[in-house]
Amino acid sequence: MTIFPSLFFDPFLKASLPLLATATETDTESSALIIAGVLLSLVVIYFASKLGGEICARIDLPPVLGELVGGVVIGVSVLHLLVFPEGGASASDSLLIQFLLKTSDLTPEAAQSVFATQSEVISVLSELGVIILLFEIGLESDLKELIRVGPQAAVVAVVGVVAPFATGTAGLIYFFHVPTIPSIFAGAALTATSIGITAKVLAEIDRLSSKEGQIIIGAAVLDDILGIVVLAVVASLVKTGEIEVFNVIILIVSAGAFLIGSILIGRLFSPLFVRLVNEMKTRGQLLLAGLIFAFILSYIAQVIQLEAILGSFTAGLVLAETEKRTELEEQIIPVADIFVPIFFVCVGAKTDLSVLNPAIPSNREGLIIAAFLIVVAILGKVITGFTVLGQPQLNKLAIGVGMIPRGEVGLVFAGVGSASGALSASTDAAIIMMVILTTFVAPPLLRVVFKEPKVALEEQSN
Amino acid sequence: MTIFPSLFFDPFLKASLPLLATATETDTESSALIIAGVLLSLVVIYFASKLGGEICARIDLPPVLGELVGGVVIGVSVLHLLVFPEGGASASDSLLIQFLLKTSDLTPEAAQSVFATQSEVISVLSELGVIILLFEIGLESDLKELIRVGPQAAVVAVVGVVAPFATGTAGLIYFFHVPTIPSIFAGAALTATSIGITAKVLAEIDRLSSKEGQIIIGAAVLDDILGIVVLAVVASLVKTGEIEVFNVIILIVSAGAFLIGSILIGRLFSPLFVRLVNEMKTRGQLLLAGLIFAFILSYIAQVIQLEAILGSFTAGLVLAETEKRTELEEQIIPVADIFVPIFFVCVGAKTDLSVLNPAIPSNREGLIIAAFLIVVAILGKVITGFTVLGQPQLNKLAIGVGMIPRGEVGLVFAGVGSASGALSASTDAAIIMMVILTTFVAPPLLRVVFKEPKVALEEQSN
Repeated sequence: MTIFPSLFFDPFLKASLPLLATATETDTESSALIIAGVLLSLVVIYFASKLGGEICARIDLPPVLGELVGGVVIGVSVLHLLVFPEGGASASDSLLIQFLLKTSDLTPEAAQSVFATQSEVISVLSELGVIILLFEIGLESDLKELIRVGPQAAVVAVVGVVAPFATGTAGLIYFFHVPTIPSIFAGAALTATSIGITAKVLAEIDRLSSKEGQIIIGAAVLDDILGIVVLAVVASLVKTGEIEVFNVIILIVSAGAFLIGSILIGRLFSPLFVRLVNEMKTRGQLLLAGLIFAFILSYIAQVIQLEAILGSFTAGLVLAETEKRTELEEQIIPVADIFVPIFFVCVGAKTDLSVLNPAIPSNREGLIIAAFLIVVAILGKVITGFTVLGQPQLNKLAIGVGMIPRGEVGLVFAGVGSASGALSASTDAAIIMMVILTTFVAPPLLRVVFKEPKVALEEQSN
Repeated sequence: MTIFPSLFFDPFLKASLPLLATATETDTESSALIIAGVLLSLVVIYFASKLGGEICARIDLPPVLGELVGGVVIGVSVLHLLVFPEGGASASDSLLIQFLLKTSDLTPEAAQSVFATQSEVISVLSELGVIILLFEIGLESDLKELIRVGPQAAVVAVVGVVAPFATGTAGLIYFFHVPTIPSIFAGAALTATSIGITAKVLAEIDRLSSKEGQIIIGAAVLDDILGIVVLAVVASLVKTGEIEVFNVIILIVSAGAFLIGSILIGRLFSPLFVRLVNEMKTRGQLLLAGLIFAFILSYIAQVIQLEAILGSFTAGLVLAETEKRTELEEQIIPVADIFVPIFFVCVGAKTDLSVLNPAIPSNREGLIIAAFLIVVAILGKVITGFTVLGQPQLNKLAIGVGMIPRGEVGLVFAGVGSASGALSASTDAAIIMMVILTTFVAPPLLRVVFKEPKVALEEQSN
């Protein structure tokens, strides 16, 4: 029945198939189980993020806090569903892998490698999450608006970065004898105001367009940039392991050069970007072109010893100035919705809150450090409002209070610091405590320092 | 200067930091480079997919073809930018890793582990891509419409699955002496019509709402489901390594039970889903709730030895029946836009077209198999139109031609088959050749067999 017998090599085919099957069976088996493990992790992560977010939204707290706390609950501190090898966990510590063992044909021997690969994949997804988050923050920022709001916002931003950074770092080194690098890291984590949380809270109390609101937003945008430069500098310091003035200068110059250079080159390139995207006919052209740009800048930032997030943030800033901004913002929302929660939940899951248990004497340092950081974090921002001189009608306390929430960017510091191994567990947990508390405390405080908007409106109309 | 000396443990802190730094320095270093590698891979993948897609869109071919060809160009066949360890490549074969070595501080020693992890991450992203693609196809499908189009579509679908499957499998076994399992796989790859490509081509020539168009779409939807069941059955057969009638029955029953069971349970559950999503207040609630549902079904499908894609497709079908369909479809588009190209480009990149080089005698079998598959693929679908009896005014040739393109689903077969190790390189390449050719040939053929729409309209109005 064979038509062209000389052309076909049955023995080869027949022999090669079982061989192929044997060689790749374990691979295929474990790659199918890696997918199963990743799917299960994502289900748990999304569930925790939504449950936490919804609970927070109902008790009038920022949903992002709920995602973090949701991560804490499923992570190493409580349920052990999502644990990571770098925290010292093995496959047998992961409830998720135990569930996989029970529900699939995963063998205990293969469990460790599935655990390792699945954790690596989730970690990369969480890194992509923060890269995409900063791209979105960049898109929502506005260089021109920033320039308009002018010197007041700049003073508020700079004081709000320098004061808590200097006080926090110096305090940790001199009062608490924390080594220099973790002190700088913790100080740096005190700098950046969360533009997302601040803007959301201002919108909720109807004060986004007030003069105070404008200054807060402008300063928060500037703060974001300053904070990212500080993060990049600090993270690079951690990488080199010591503080060399030459290195710091190089890093500040390269961070500045990268930021300014990318923005200038990006502005030259953005008309070409818009023309190219308009020419393209296939689905997703704008989103993929935007992500290609963001990922290239992230790659460059990463390999020149800065952080990938600085690249994606800059890409967002550049593209925010094009006519494609609104369209791109709309398209990035669902992408951010599925990637960003992975980051926050993983930060929470990796946080070992057991170091804050005051019953164990050695843990008390974490709590004391947290208390110190919280005081510095709040006072260091509250004073910023009073740096705006000569405008007596301005609610200066409100400006300072508006700068209190640290939110995403503070967590980025905690995440990067903990991933880099620079932060001890207690300092890391203290930073997260500080972020949680400042974010918790800001929304109710803002309502106190601003008059109730309805009352204000009634007073105006009377 | 120490305030509470007894509470702080400087020696611990000072000693633990360098320890931590040493233990995690390589990890941090390589994890930063894994991110860099993944970012670079994504840039290359997105660039290839858009370049290929745009070229195809300009010469009037489906963009998905361009993504596949783009993958072939950057993959193991041509540029070696994106290669995978399961294809036998090592870090030194990957141009991308070589680029990383040149642009970053990656050491040649660490290169192999960065290459392995980065490839694993891209493979998982590509798997998530096909899971999300099938979720989207499920959302775009419509059980009720299918029932309306009725028996004609069903006959066309069933004949269009059985005829090429039986002819293809039998032909490969008896004429070409290919072993049974790869023959069944290749036969199965001949079954599923690409609903996306067919619908798009029909829309382009303005025939989507014609009676022929309705039957084609209905049959293509059914075909999609049949094809996925066939894929699940075949992939499971590959996993167990042999054909056992009992296994086949178990699998068909479990595939059927899973599909019908999920749809029935899903329908009961979907009002709760809609109520829950309406109750939720945080960003991304619908998308994440939908993905949680899709990933749970994917996980179940995966662990009961079916394929994850069957789960996400079913989840899409169920959610397509809720009032949230349109909103969810809109939100899934950007997500699919960033995930799905990774799948198609990776399928292309993993395809070693060198096995089709006719200069090497042993390669000729791949070409001959491809020629055979192409003939069966076209004839097996063209005859389906003529199974619609008693409607002489119907353009039966057009119905059959409309069923020719295999597109995504055919590539899913090739991808799953090649990943599972069941397909020899030549059979795998032959299937891809068949998919490429049927997809290439359908759009121009459809224009020939349908009269020009303008002429038809003029005849009507005369």
